[in-house]
Amino acid sequence: MNRIVLFFLLTIILNIPANSQDPDSLIINRIFSNALTDYTSFNNLKYLCEKAPGRLAGTQASISAVNYCKKVLESYELDTVFLQKIKVQKWDCSSEPTLAIIEKNKKNRKLNICALGPSVATGKEGVVAEAIEVKDLKDLEKLGKKKIKGKIVFFNRPMDNSLFSTGKAYGGAIDQRIHGASEASKYGAAASILRSLTTSIDDFPHTGVFRYEEGIKKIPAVAVSTKDAELLSKKLKKNPKLQLKLNVTCKDHGPVESCNLIGDLKGKKKPEEIILIGAHIDCWHNTPGAHDDGAGCVHMIDVIRIFKELKIKPNRTIRIVLFMDEEMNQSGGKEYAALTEKTKLNHYTAFESDGGGPSPRGFSICASDSTMKSIIRFKKYFEPYHITLFNEGRGGVDIRKLNEFGTPLIGPILDVQRYFDYHHSENDTFDKINHRELQLGAAAIASMIYLIDKHGIKR
Amino acid sequence: MNRIVLFFLLTIILNIPANSQDPDSLIINRIFSNALTDYTSFNNLKYLCEKAPGRLAGTQASISAVNYCKKVLESYELDTVFLQKIKVQKWDCSSEPTLAIIEKNKKNRKLNICALGPSVATGKEGVVAEAIEVKDLKDLEKLGKKKIKGKIVFFNRPMDNSLFSTGKAYGGAIDQRIHGASEASKYGAAASILRSLTTSIDDFPHTGVFRYEEGIKKIPAVAVSTKDAELLSKKLKKNPKLQLKLNVTCKDHGPVESCNLIGDLKGKKKPEEIILIGAHIDCWHNTPGAHDDGAGCVHMIDVIRIFKELKIKPNRTIRIVLFMDEEMNQSGGKEYAALTEKTKLNHYTAFESDGGGPSPRGFSICASDSTMKSIIRFKKYFEPYHITLFNEGRGGVDIRKLNEFGTPLIGPILDVQRYFDYHHSENDTFDKINHRELQLGAAAIASMIYLIDKHGIKR
Repeated sequence: MNRIVLFFLLTIILNIPANSQDPDSLIINRIFSNALTDYTSFNNLKYLCEKAPGRLAGTQASISAVNYCKKVLESYELDTVFLQKIKVQKWDCSSEPTLAIIEKNKKNRKLNICALGPSVATGKEGVVAEAIEVKDLKDLEKLGKKKIKGKIVFFNRPMDNSLFSTGKAYGGAIDQRIHGASEASKYGAAASILRSLTTSIDDFPHTGVFRYEEGIKKIPAVAVSTKDAELLSKKLKKNPKLQLKLNVTCKDHGPVESCNLIGDLKGKKKPEEIILIGAHIDCWHNTPGAHDDGAGCVHMIDVIRIFKELKIKPNRTIRIVLFMDEEMNQSGGKEYAALTEKTKLNHYTAFESDGGGPSPRGFSICASDSTMKSIIRFKKYFEPYHITLFNEGRGGVDIRKLNEFGTPLIGPILDVQRYFDYHHSENDTFDKINHRELQLGAAAIASMIYLIDKHGIKR
Repeated sequence: MNRIVLFFLLTIILNIPANSQDPDSLIINRIFSNALTDYTSFNNLKYLCEKAPGRLAGTQASISAVNYCKKVLESYELDTVFLQKIKVQKWDCSSEPTLAIIEKNKKNRKLNICALGPSVATGKEGVVAEAIEVKDLKDLEKLGKKKIKGKIVFFNRPMDNSLFSTGKAYGGAIDQRIHGASEASKYGAAASILRSLTTSIDDFPHTGVFRYEEGIKKIPAVAVSTKDAELLSKKLKKNPKLQLKLNVTCKDHGPVESCNLIGDLKGKKKPEEIILIGAHIDCWHNTPGAHDDGAGCVHMIDVIRIFKELKIKPNRTIRIVLFMDEEMNQSGGKEYAALTEKTKLNHYTAFESDGGGPSPRGFSICASDSTMKSIIRFKKYFEPYHITLFNEGRGGVDIRKLNEFGTPLIGPILDVQRYFDYHHSENDTFDKINHRELQLGAAAIASMIYLIDKHGIKR
């Protein structure tokens, strides 16, 4: 047997093609070309941003977004498109709070703020109090009740922008947001203000979720723009007795009905094995949610479009799930996991896209070593598209639970250097999305699904 | 000898450290951290875009830009900062041309255009003529003189956006711009219009250089925005006798004095060996030139700042050259190459940054196989920053000639998916630059210079 024949036999046996002219490379090339020249998802995202901004779980906007995406999925003639009914906690902060610096003989200086979710209200009179700046939750203990009681605690530790990973920089500052209000409340604080968690120095406040600790008095919690955080800090240094006035009118409406949107493209050989592709359709009240996570939703819708348009018939069922309520209580993800357990759904793999619309750089994988290896063998197919990273990861918030049932999780690694400039703010608008970068994300996910479905992975 | 000692000895002998705690990794980490938290270059770029837009060679703006950057370099206390005097051809098109569709009983419809450089003028009366659309230079021969004579030829082949490489897509359409006017003139055309070479469908016309063939009558040449190219094409299909009116007032002023800006940070051990870092300071008349190539200029200025600030004293001389006239006649690059030849300058390596300010993905290298290999051994230092590509390339326009003298050329590979949306247009503004992405480019170049200077490369 000569070496060339042996080589071809081996590539057939191993089921891994060897050069750019092999059929898989050609199909992946078609996937990327198709994605780069199609504007459907880009236009869908424009619609979501412009017609359904502030689509927080429980809002009318969130239902409009679901209805719109449902119609889009139905237009692709999927085998099933349906809603999974869920309950979500409705928190309404449609009229934004106000915060002003009060100085004698001066006009009140208004600061750019937004409410953190699920902040309580201040009451009509608002809170008028001195502010006290801290950089760390530990500072509260050092200061003690005496210095904190009755005051507005101002958490002002910035994200560490010296880190390459913006995700790590975010993670390193988020404790102030998650626990700040309740920790401050333990020392008698009247309210809490957070320096916005963002990579940018600008006028946009950035919201996000926090948790009220059970049994601790709930105090209002807001975020202030980074520029105004620096202003406030400067003024506090000059005058530690500086007075602030805070008004927050948010309200908790209790549980209401909502839904996840689900669509199935049935597999032709193993329809019971599901390749889930997920993103979250909700976004914060103060933003059009272009990157977070409108981009993820249209990534996944575009995967469906690509498979349909290129007539790629998967062996396994591709199920798109647009999860509700990722931002606040993750009830969409939790209820889907409960459904999975109850009805013994078999998820072969689960993908989530929740890093916005920048260029894809690779894949983050949460799986056993052997599964990881069997995914890494596809690396060479992605190199022509500068997608080179195959890193260990934790999986997205909405699909994480599926890993406990043994499902490998995969997410695109996106170039999120500018992501946190926009994240959870009014500035996360459609014009921040580049068409080609967005579409490369969809193409990367579609290509990985194609390869996994065709060649299988070790489980 | 135990294995750990052996391991350390080996890493010393091979001069290649092995883990993230080795001194080189730590220094590279400091370079990236420093770059990510510094705003000097970002602010310099803002200045260049806002105070010296349209800095085409020969203009006052180009000299203002040189003077500004000279002051910045002098502030870093380089060993020498000087100007290399050169001659450039001054072409002035500061009053933009106009193009209108003339239809009976309708108001003239103005199209968004800009002049290509170095277009001649139409004369005061302008050109009023029918338009004829072609997709390829070859179409001209098919149509022949009879159909082309006296008409305005409209080159309307778009960039192939299905390609992953926007550079290749640009390269695949550029023949229409470079040769279109003279080729059309051979068939008696009165003027030529080019569909803008861009990845975007919008209202911005994109300029660029073209060449008049010697002995062929010079006709005016302009570019029309992609949206208006589609409108014009549609209208021509309805009415092939559609009349256009073109007015161009550009003027060639002949040769004038200009300069390259050069600064040297002298090497402590081998000062005669130069590591050149270049970018071009000129930009087109119609643009602030934020990505092209303001970003490249401030990348290289930031390399100097980083070395100075971190007190890294290079063995070899780091020479920054901000070249004049890359866009039109490359006279800055040519005259620098002539100087190199005449004074026998010894360039150890030469870097050029001319791909704007997006995130770096790797390095493009023009060198022998053995040099290439000795550069690739540094790959692992860049992986933590998602810089993974070490590809063969051709080197930048301004330094290419140095390769003929044996100098290896290196350029950052930048994520240019959105670069051609802005390239050579009014839309290439400072707000399209992301601080972190820009600074990562500077850090990548500075780190590569540090490694090459410290460990050397095979020549």
